[in-house]
Amino acid sequence: MTYPASDEPPRPGPQGPVRLGPFARTALRPSPTARIDDGFWSVRRDVNANISIPQGPALLESAGNLHDLRLAAGTATGAYRGQYPFMDSDVYKWLEAASWELAHHQQGTGDARARRLADDVERIIALVAEAQQDDGYLNTWFQVTRDDAHYQDLRWGHELYCAGHLIQAAVAHHRSTGRSGLLDVAVRFADQIDSVFGHGKRIDGIDGHPEVETALVELFRETGERRYLDLAGYFVDSHGRGLLGSEVYCQDRVPLREAQNVEGHAVRQLYLLAAAADLAAESGEAELLRANERLWQAMTATKTHITGGLGAHHDEEDFGDPYELPNERAYCETCAAIASIQWSWRMALLTGHARYSDLIERTLFNGFLAGVSLDGERWLYVNPLQVRDGHTDPGGDQSARRTRWFRCACCPPNVMRLLSSLQHYLASTDGRGLQIHQYASGRLTGDAFGMPVVVSVHTNYPWHGRITLTVEDSPGDRPWTLALRVPQWCEQYSVQVDGAAVETRAVQGWLRLERSWRQGEVVLLDLDLEPRLTRADPRVDAVRGCVAIERGPLVYCLEQVDHPGGGLDDVLIDTTRPLAVKHRPDLLGGVTVIAAAGQRRTPAVEAAHWWPYRAADPVAAATDPPADGERIELTAVPYYAWANRQDGSMRVWLPIL
Amino acid sequence: MTYPASDEPPRPGPQGPVRLGPFARTALRPSPTARIDDGFWSVRRDVNANISIPQGPALLESAGNLHDLRLAAGTATGAYRGQYPFMDSDVYKWLEAASWELAHHQQGTGDARARRLADDVERIIALVAEAQQDDGYLNTWFQVTRDDAHYQDLRWGHELYCAGHLIQAAVAHHRSTGRSGLLDVAVRFADQIDSVFGHGKRIDGIDGHPEVETALVELFRETGERRYLDLAGYFVDSHGRGLLGSEVYCQDRVPLREAQNVEGHAVRQLYLLAAAADLAAESGEAELLRANERLWQAMTATKTHITGGLGAHHDEEDFGDPYELPNERAYCETCAAIASIQWSWRMALLTGHARYSDLIERTLFNGFLAGVSLDGERWLYVNPLQVRDGHTDPGGDQSARRTRWFRCACCPPNVMRLLSSLQHYLASTDGRGLQIHQYASGRLTGDAFGMPVVVSVHTNYPWHGRITLTVEDSPGDRPWTLALRVPQWCEQYSVQVDGAAVETRAVQGWLRLERSWRQGEVVLLDLDLEPRLTRADPRVDAVRGCVAIERGPLVYCLEQVDHPGGGLDDVLIDTTRPLAVKHRPDLLGGVTVIAAAGQRRTPAVEAAHWWPYRAADPVAAATDPPADGERIELTAVPYYAWANRQDGSMRVWLPIL
Repeated sequence: MTYPASDEPPRPGPQGPVRLGPFARTALRPSPTARIDDGFWSVRRDVNANISIPQGPALLESAGNLHDLRLAAGTATGAYRGQYPFMDSDVYKWLEAASWELAHHQQGTGDARARRLADDVERIIALVAEAQQDDGYLNTWFQVTRDDAHYQDLRWGHELYCAGHLIQAAVAHHRSTGRSGLLDVAVRFADQIDSVFGHGKRIDGIDGHPEVETALVELFRETGERRYLDLAGYFVDSHGRGLLGSEVYCQDRVPLREAQNVEGHAVRQLYLLAAAADLAAESGEAELLRANERLWQAMTATKTHITGGLGAHHDEEDFGDPYELPNERAYCETCAAIASIQWSWRMALLTGHARYSDLIERTLFNGFLAGVSLDGERWLYVNPLQVRDGHTDPGGDQSARRTRWFRCACCPPNVMRLLSSLQHYLASTDGRGLQIHQYASGRLTGDAFGMPVVVSVHTNYPWHGRITLTVEDSPGDRPWTLALRVPQWCEQYSVQVDGAAVETRAVQGWLRLERSWRQGEVVLLDLDLEPRLTRADPRVDAVRGCVAIERGPLVYCLEQVDHPGGGLDDVLIDTTRPLAVKHRPDLLGGVTVIAAAGQRRTPAVEAAHWWPYRAADPVAAATDPPADGERIELTAVPYYAWANRQDGSMRVWLPIL
Repeated sequence: MTYPASDEPPRPGPQGPVRLGPFARTALRPSPTARIDDGFWSVRRDVNANISIPQGPALLESAGNLHDLRLAAGTATGAYRGQYPFMDSDVYKWLEAASWELAHHQQGTGDARARRLADDVERIIALVAEAQQDDGYLNTWFQVTRDDAHYQDLRWGHELYCAGHLIQAAVAHHRSTGRSGLLDVAVRFADQIDSVFGHGKRIDGIDGHPEVETALVELFRETGERRYLDLAGYFVDSHGRGLLGSEVYCQDRVPLREAQNVEGHAVRQLYLLAAAADLAAESGEAELLRANERLWQAMTATKTHITGGLGAHHDEEDFGDPYELPNERAYCETCAAIASIQWSWRMALLTGHARYSDLIERTLFNGFLAGVSLDGERWLYVNPLQVRDGHTDPGGDQSARRTRWFRCACCPPNVMRLLSSLQHYLASTDGRGLQIHQYASGRLTGDAFGMPVVVSVHTNYPWHGRITLTVEDSPGDRPWTLALRVPQWCEQYSVQVDGAAVETRAVQGWLRLERSWRQGEVVLLDLDLEPRLTRADPRVDAVRGCVAIERGPLVYCLEQVDHPGGGLDDVLIDTTRPLAVKHRPDLLGGVTVIAAAGQRRTPAVEAAHWWPYRAADPVAAATDPPADGERIELTAVPYYAWANRQDGSMRVWLPIL
C-alpha cells in the first residue's frame, strides 16, 4: 500500500493547519485559529500554563531526564538515571506541551513568563540536538547504557516510540513558532529510521509501542515528504505480521484490518489506531476506514468505562474482555484517555460523525481530567472508579492517591500537551461553514466558500447549559452552515436565533443551522442539564444493581470526606427520591454538587461471621435482604475533582437501595 | 523471643509424627497413620501417583531444572535454563511429593512403579547433593549465573525460599523412608544459613518470599535442633522491620503481631502465617496466636472467594482490598490455595476449632482441586471464577486454559505434594480420642489414654452424604471421644450408632460422641446434600444480584459446552424454580450435575448501540429492565472439574432472573 493513494496534497493534521494548505475533500479540517479565552477549560488551561508546564524543566532535571541527555551528549558524567529506555519521551512530550503553549503567547513582548518558557524550550531543544548522534539516531538510554544494541530489542526498546514523540514535539514547535531547530533534529532521526526500517531494508520490524506512526504522518504533513507517510504505512501494516512474536501486548496478534475488537495494551492499541485513522484519511482506503469504525464501535460498546476511561487490567495495562469493566481495578490510564481523544478526533474529522466528539467530551471531562489535580501539581496514572474503605494503597505509579511525579512519568507531560492544545479539538470547518464539537468560551474560525467565518462562544458550561454563540465574521449574504453538536447525553434542548426559537432538530447529533449569517447575530443553544441516573448494559457485571449519577457531560462520584461517620462500602442510593443540584463556588474550585437520598447499611449480623457467603432463601433470592441502616444524604461531586482533598474511599457506581 | 518458650519437646509436625514423640498439651496431633484407600480422593491421589508424579522427572529435565543442577555440580556445560532464581524449588517440591508417595508403597517389594519412583528420587537427590557447595550453600541460579552475589538480592533472590523447599523435601523424605541423604544436604544448608543470618551475624535480613520459616520449624521437629526453631522465629519476627524496604509485596510493611488483615502477595503472606502458627504452637505465645486468629478471620470474612481461592490481583499476585473479589480476574493462585490449607491445618491443630477445617474442605474440593486437570497432566496457575464469551486468552502462566507446564512452574509440584500427603489433613488425635476433619474412605488412627484407637471410614462423599465409620480398634471399656466435624455448610444431619439414632448436636462444628467404643461398632453420619443457592455479603460488589450453586462442599459452575446455542454472558438463573440433582458417571470422571431453570437474555436494542450506558427511569431503577429471552435449562458442574473439555466461557456466580 502506498500512502497517499493519489497525488492529492496532504490533509491538515488534527492539530491545526499545515503549511501545505487545506485538503479539499468532504472531510473536516480543525478550526485553524480556535482559541479558548474564558470559562471551565480556560481555568484548567491556565493552571496547566502557569503551574504544570513551568514546573516541567525542574521535574525533568530532578528525575534525571535532562541529565541523561547530557550524558548522551558527552557534556556530563555519572550513571544513567531512570530505569526505562523511554526516559527521553517525557522530555519530548513536555516540549510539545510547551510549544503549543508558546503559540498562545505573543513572543518578544514584555511577558516575562512567555520569555522564560521560550528560553526553557530553546535550552532543552539545544540539549536534545547535542545528544543526537551524527547519523541521526537519538535515544539516551541506549546511547549511554547499551550503545551496541540499537534497534536490537524492538519489543521493549521504545526507540521508535521516543522518535515519535520527538517528531510530534518538533511539529508542534514548528507550527507554533515557525522555528526549525527541533524539526531539523526530528527530520534527521526520521531519515535515519527510514534508511534502516522497511521491506527489503536492514530491519523488517516494528516498535513494541506504537507512536512513531502518527508522528510520521504529521511529519509528512508538515514537510510534504512522502517517504514519511509511506514509512508510517509500513509500520501500521506490519502490526500483526508476527514480527514481535504475535504478542497481543505489542499489538502484533492480528493485522488491524482483520481485528474485531480493541485488545492488548490500551495505549499502544489507541496510538496505533490514531495512526490508522490518519492513514485512512490520507489514502481514502475504505477497508482501513471500516476497520477503524468497527474497532471504535466495539471499544465503546464493550470496553469503555462510563468516564471514557479505557483498560481493565493493571497487568499488562490491557483492555480486558468485552464487558469486563471493574471499578476498583479500572486501570483507565490517563494516557489511554488522551490516546482515545486523539483517535476519536481523527475519526471525527474523517467521518464527520458526532459520536466521536461525544466520546471526546465524555473523556475530556472525566477520564482525562481526573488525571491531574486541581492545582496542577499532582497526578494520577490510573483512574479507578472505586476506592474501598479498607484500601491498602500500593503507592508508586499505580497509586490511587495523587503523586508528584512517576517513575514511569508518561502521563503528566501527556496531560500537559493535551491541555495546551485543547483548542484544536473544539471545532472544524469543511469549506461550507463551521462545526462546533465542544463548548468552551472562546473564538472559533472556519471558512465558507473561500471566505472566513468567525464565531465567538460564551458559556458557563458544564455548570450551565446555555451556550451563546455570536457571529463575528460572515461572508456576506451567501448561506453557510453553523453546525452544533447536541451531546449524546442530552435529551432536551432548544435553540434560538436572535431571540426567535428555531424548530430544527439534531440529526445524528448535529443541529445544522444554514442561513446567510449576519455579523452580530446571536445563537442561543440551551442544553438541559437535569441530573440523571445512569445504568449499564446488564453484561457489565461489575455494576449490576447500581446507578451512576451524571449531569451534562460530567460523571459524578461520592467521596468519603463528604460522608462523615463511616465509609462508602455500605452506602446505597434511594433512586425513588429526586436529585438536587447546588453550585458550590467554594468547593473544589467551584463545582455543582448533586445531593441524593441514601442509606448507610448496617452490616448484617452474619457479615461479621468468618464466612461472607450464606445460603439464600430461593424465593427471596431475587432481592438482597432488606437493608437496615441510617438514612443519609449523599453528596456527589464531579469525578474529575476527586482525590483533591483528604485520602479516603470513593465510588462512582452506587448500589440501589 | 526464644522458641520454644519452655523446655518442652517439640510438637508433632502438621504432617505426621516426628521422631521425638507427641507433645502432651491439649492441642491436636495429626492422625499418625491415616490413609486413604477408596473413593473420591483415592481417585485423585491415584492420578497424582500414577500420572502426575511419574511425569515429573521428564518435565524437570525438559524445563532445564535438572540440567541446572548439573551445571552447578560441574557435570554439565551450557547455559543456565529458566529465567528464575527459584528453579531449584520445583525440583524440591517434586522430591517432597515423591517422598510422601513413597511412604504409601512397600519398598523393596515387586512393585516396579514404586521401585522406579524410588530410583528417580535417589537419582535426583544425588544430583542435588552434587550441586551443593562445600559450605552448604545451594542455589543453582546464583551458583551458575551470579556466583559473586549470594544473599545480595534478598528481595528477589529466593535463596532462602529454595532452601525452605529443600528442607521440606528432606523432612518428607526422611519421615517417609528413614533415609538421611537429603536430610544431610538440608541440614548443611540450614547450618550455613544459620551461620550467616541473624541479629549480630553477617546479615540481618529476610527472604522476599517466606517459606524457609515453616521449613526450619519442621527441621527442628525432625532433628530436635533448637537453633532451627530460633532461626525460624528470627525470620518471622523480622518481617515488618523494614529490612526489605517495608514492601507489602514482600510481607515487610508491618510486623505480623500488629497486622489487621492479610495483605500483599498472597502466597508469601500465607507461607509466613503458616510459620507464625507453627511458632505460636511451639512457644505458646498468646499474642502471636491472637494475631493468627485475627488475620485468619479477616481473610476469610473479607478476602476469600467462595471457592476458597485467595488473591484478587494479577498484578503483584496481591490479596487486594476487603470485599474486592472479582470473578474474571480472581487470581486465586493454586499455590495460594495450598498455602491456605497449610496455614489452616496448623490453626486447626493448634486451636481445635472446626472452622479451620471447614475452610480446608472448601479449598480442597474447589480452589485447590481446580488447579489440576482430571487426567493429571495439565494445570491452572490462576483459577478465575468467570471466563467471558469474548475472552482473549493471554496464554502463558496466567492462562485461563490448562497448560502442560509453566515458565514459573510453582503450582504443579505443589499440587503433587499436597495430594500425596493429603491423608495428613484428615484426622487428629488428642490423647483422648480421634477427631475426623475430612471425610474420605480410609483408615484413621489415634490414641486414647495411651492406647491406640482405629476407625475406618467408608463413604461416597461428596456425591453422597452418608459416612460410615467403623471402630476397628478401641482401648477396652474406657470411654473416649470420636469427634466428627459437621461441615459449616451443612444445616441438616443425623447420626446413628449401631442403628440407633443419636440426638447429640454439633457444638461449634464438632459432634462429639463419647463412649466406651467397642470394636466393630458402626457410626452412620448422614449429611444433607440438598443443593443450595448461595449469596455473598452485599459488600462483595462483584456478585451483586447473583447466586452461586453449591452442594455439600462443592461449588458449581456453568460451562459453555453444556449450553449450546450461545454464550454465558447473557444467562440468568430463575431462583424460584427447584434445583435438580443427577449423578452422571459418564461425565468428567463421574460427577453429580445440578440442573436449574434459566433464561438466555436477548441483548436489548440499546446494547447494540455504541454506548453501553443509558439513562435509568428513576422509579424503575431498582430493577433491571425485564429481560426478554429464551428459557433454557442450566447445567452446573463442579467447579473443580471445569476446563477439562473444550475451551469456552464459564461462570460461578449467576445473575438472578
